[in-house]
Amino acid sequence: MSYKIAIVGSGAVGCYYGAHLVRAGAEVHFLMRSDLNHVAEHGLAVESALHADFEVKEVLCHATTEEIGAVDLVIIALKSTQNEVLETLIPPLLGEHTCLLTLQNGLGNGEFLAQHFGEQRVMGGLCFVCLNRTSPGVIKHLGFGLIMMGELHASATDRTRQVVEWFSRSGINCEVVGDLMWASWRKLVWNIPFNGLAILGGGIDVAEILADEDLLVLTRQLMREVIRTAGVLGYELPDTLVDEQVEKTLKMGPYRPSSMVDFVEGRAVEVEAIWGEPWRRGAEAGAEVGRLEMMYRLINEKTRALRER
Amino acid sequence: MSYKIAIVGSGAVGCYYGAHLVRAGAEVHFLMRSDLNHVAEHGLAVESALHADFEVKEVLCHATTEEIGAVDLVIIALKSTQNEVLETLIPPLLGEHTCLLTLQNGLGNGEFLAQHFGEQRVMGGLCFVCLNRTSPGVIKHLGFGLIMMGELHASATDRTRQVVEWFSRSGINCEVVGDLMWASWRKLVWNIPFNGLAILGGGIDVAEILADEDLLVLTRQLMREVIRTAGVLGYELPDTLVDEQVEKTLKMGPYRPSSMVDFVEGRAVEVEAIWGEPWRRGAEAGAEVGRLEMMYRLINEKTRALRER
Repeated sequence: MSYKIAIVGSGAVGCYYGAHLVRAGAEVHFLMRSDLNHVAEHGLAVESALHADFEVKEVLCHATTEEIGAVDLVIIALKSTQNEVLETLIPPLLGEHTCLLTLQNGLGNGEFLAQHFGEQRVMGGLCFVCLNRTSPGVIKHLGFGLIMMGELHASATDRTRQVVEWFSRSGINCEVVGDLMWASWRKLVWNIPFNGLAILGGGIDVAEILADEDLLVLTRQLMREVIRTAGVLGYELPDTLVDEQVEKTLKMGPYRPSSMVDFVEGRAVEVEAIWGEPWRRGAEAGAEVGRLEMMYRLINEKTRALRER
Repeated sequence: MSYKIAIVGSGAVGCYYGAHLVRAGAEVHFLMRSDLNHVAEHGLAVESALHADFEVKEVLCHATTEEIGAVDLVIIALKSTQNEVLETLIPPLLGEHTCLLTLQNGLGNGEFLAQHFGEQRVMGGLCFVCLNRTSPGVIKHLGFGLIMMGELHASATDRTRQVVEWFSRSGINCEVVGDLMWASWRKLVWNIPFNGLAILGGGIDVAEILADEDLLVLTRQLMREVIRTAGVLGYELPDTLVDEQVEKTLKMGPYRPSSMVDFVEGRAVEVEAIWGEPWRRGAEAGAEVGRLEMMYRLINEKTRALRER
């Protein structure tokens, strides 16, 4: 069966997974802005610390979604601070059965898509991957790579398994997840402390966070607070996740969390998706979210000027 | 009755109150370092937004406490991060009845003096005053001026009232406080949020803190946490203090808290006295001090390199 895919938001995540799908023979259309001419001419290059480097020379690049037309699958890897542009970008891509897969960070993105285009269309994928876009069309893969995919507020279906198969066939480590929200909270156990402390530390990497005695204590306290908050919301996560995540992060070396890179480079930071929405959902459910709220408000103040970029 | 006073730590606080005492005719000896030659030649100048400006031309300046010898009262206005030098600076000033009055910020300074020189010698004074040292020997008085004085861990005595009288007679608004620890916690209700958020905001003033919706929420939450912590430790403070302090601070205009000025100018920040010691005492007593601990650890990380200066 042939299928047509559109990638909206061709940053590091969109290009990395998109390049894999192209290489496996899928028809993948990339919506691009600044890198369009460069990628149309030179293609995409993936330089990996884990697997063989590869290039895809022929890349279908587009400046508008009208040019792409209806597709089977839209992969949304846009920064969540720009979600409002999806209201106009998505409609030209929609056919009767078009599925929208958000690979975005944090909470609230799937709900945004559901609200505008119908919940039945929406899937989510949680990317556990360390990527940096080092220059136009060049993606550096620093570690991991797993995507956990599921339906927004439902159990996995044949469609879920179909999309997972498309990804898996292209060499991406991809799994079906039964409860996407549970997995989203599990991912936040890492994202909330490390992205946050990297910003509040003035632009430091995860190795610097773990090497500082105070920030290491805060990392663990924030992880425990996120785990307890998830529990109050009905998503049970084990306390052992704290040690497990710290151990895993120690092996990452001087990795720079994506929000910190955005912050130091003066780009919009995903404050609401990563801290605001989790804090609000926890607070509404009566969880003790004092540290999370403090982190959210400190980052909000620091990034207010960058938010709309 | 004639009396002899030594001032150890001749920054803005030491010079402002010392200049008042000199003007009233007291024998005041200033221990000085960088400003010694300038002040010995030109004296001290107080420029005030509230009362008449004045100068004292003849100032007794010294490079060592041996030169000063035994005094009736030692006023300690040194930054708390430098307390260890007091172990050698104080002994030459001690006579049989010498009283040590710490005007330093935060918690732990009186206890430090008591441990080294005996609790019976120690008094504390809480300064509610906005001062900046603008150039050598020149102190700018921006607002307030009250000192509340008491014995370290005892009720007020004749000595307390005597020292308060010396200050009052020189035109300083000075009051006896029955419970110095209670008053110290009351002062921390202001110092903890405003000094802390001014630093975590990257060097902002109190008007900028109050104008930011997130930092205003954090200010109020931190004040409530400090009030509750004081309550657990047995120092009852009313919740109305929150609104009262916010209102009072709105009238200060763009005041720069002293710790923030230290931070942006690369000087040691009183992290332990203002945040560390209050957090530890609260945590040991079982108070909920999550925000205070987070603030302490974030500031500790930010100022680690400046701490020993």
